[in-house]
Amino acid sequence: MTNDLEPVETTACLILIGNELLSGRTQDKNLAFIATELNEVGVRLREARVIPDVRETIVATLNECRAKHDYVFTTGGIGPTHDDITTECVAAAFGVGLYRDQVTVDLLTERTRERGQEMNEARLRMATFPVGAELLPNSISAAPGYRLDNVFVMAGIPRVMQVMFEAARSQLRGGRKVQARSVAVDLGEGTIADCLSALQAKHPAIDIGSYPQMRPVGFRVSVVLRSTDDAMLDRVTEELIGALRTIGGDPQLEDIATAQSTAEPEG
Amino acid sequence: MTNDLEPVETTACLILIGNELLSGRTQDKNLAFIATELNEVGVRLREARVIPDVRETIVATLNECRAKHDYVFTTGGIGPTHDDITTECVAAAFGVGLYRDQVTVDLLTERTRERGQEMNEARLRMATFPVGAELLPNSISAAPGYRLDNVFVMAGIPRVMQVMFEAARSQLRGGRKVQARSVAVDLGEGTIADCLSALQAKHPAIDIGSYPQMRPVGFRVSVVLRSTDDAMLDRVTEELIGALRTIGGDPQLEDIATAQSTAEPEG
Repeated sequence: MTNDLEPVETTACLILIGNELLSGRTQDKNLAFIATELNEVGVRLREARVIPDVRETIVATLNECRAKHDYVFTTGGIGPTHDDITTECVAAAFGVGLYRDQVTVDLLTERTRERGQEMNEARLRMATFPVGAELLPNSISAAPGYRLDNVFVMAGIPRVMQVMFEAARSQLRGGRKVQARSVAVDLGEGTIADCLSALQAKHPAIDIGSYPQMRPVGFRVSVVLRSTDDAMLDRVTEELIGALRTIGGDPQLEDIATAQSTAEPEG
Repeated sequence: MTNDLEPVETTACLILIGNELLSGRTQDKNLAFIATELNEVGVRLREARVIPDVRETIVATLNECRAKHDYVFTTGGIGPTHDDITTECVAAAFGVGLYRDQVTVDLLTERTRERGQEMNEARLRMATFPVGAELLPNSISAAPGYRLDNVFVMAGIPRVMQVMFEAARSQLRGGRKVQARSVAVDLGEGTIADCLSALQAKHPAIDIGSYPQMRPVGFRVSVVLRSTDDAMLDRVTEELIGALRTIGGDPQLEDIATAQSTAEPEG
């Protein structure tokens, strides 16, 4: 077993681009989706940044993050309007020029005609990509996202982002998938804290998180254990359940996918 | 009028701390709230970072962001369990020690007794603060947040964070509040793009954003104009409405607070 050593991870950073996220106008829904999907393919999302539609900020953030992580994903700023500046920033960050993709021009022209609209320079911006980009098809609204080196550039609109992510997915080379177990117990966080910290100290390769749940009365905490080693995870989960019983709890394994994600405080 | 010059802004960064945000387990709700509230007091949220419960990452991010912005807000990691490491990271970032606050000890002891629980070392961690911290009271679950210099440290649980933010609010010294207008028009983004970019070029002091809305059929775009100058905002909004009429639209002012925030694509 080498699980007490830090395993080699495939890491990712997500850059959410858009003034509307920083003004409070728009509630982000992309982070949780991308985080969950990356985990499925063994890629660990190590950070996310929310940045405004400001060229220097976008270029600097892209360059910092693409050097630091195996993969970078961006959302937002690839539409037809003046505030959609992601593509020119990606080109600047990589020091490459832009090209117009004729297949995309044809696709957008057809789509535009079908909608009774006119093709124009603004719409053609969505057929313009940094040199070297490999396109990510968009079955929802036609204009593609793209990959350049280790950077995946996607739309900000959740369902469009999701089809682009689907296209990106098969290109990702992840490591071992992080598995999780969740154990619910009706005790306060302060009551189980010693038990958890002893378990964490004993098993540093397991990531143990404590998340109090929303309840009208009484306490419930979800303890989430994460590791790439399924067998070890099962053993430590059993150990946790035993330890929580010792301090008077009635711990129950819960479905990790349905465990409540909105936390509520204890004291 | 000096509005073509960049006004002096009071800026802020938000650091969302927690593995659960990067694993997809928890959907963040704090960014949009804090962004909206900061705007109300004339503070501009310029970036947000989502980072894991990793000491070096938290310390480095705190030091980078507190040097760069007037204010830094953190959420998460101030509970009683082993994965709550924000306070020790704040102390390390500032190079100060920790102290135990007796008023908070008494408060938590009373609260713990009322709940039929025992006071212990884990719960006492929530009465431990970096030297120099000014506390932010928490009427929900007793354990306070705090301010140290320009850093406000708050809980991750939304309704607890919100009462802490309420306490922080009166301490913030903002600049002029950014006002907004939203104009809805039933045209595609590609159709109005030229009109918007001409208006943006003419009025660089106004931040103009284009956000397509979710519709079962047809198109609707919300054009959002932002500025600290109310009178200028009114004039440019009128100019936008006139320009959109010229290209065949029937633009309508919409309530900025209720304008739909979930975007949908055009082509």
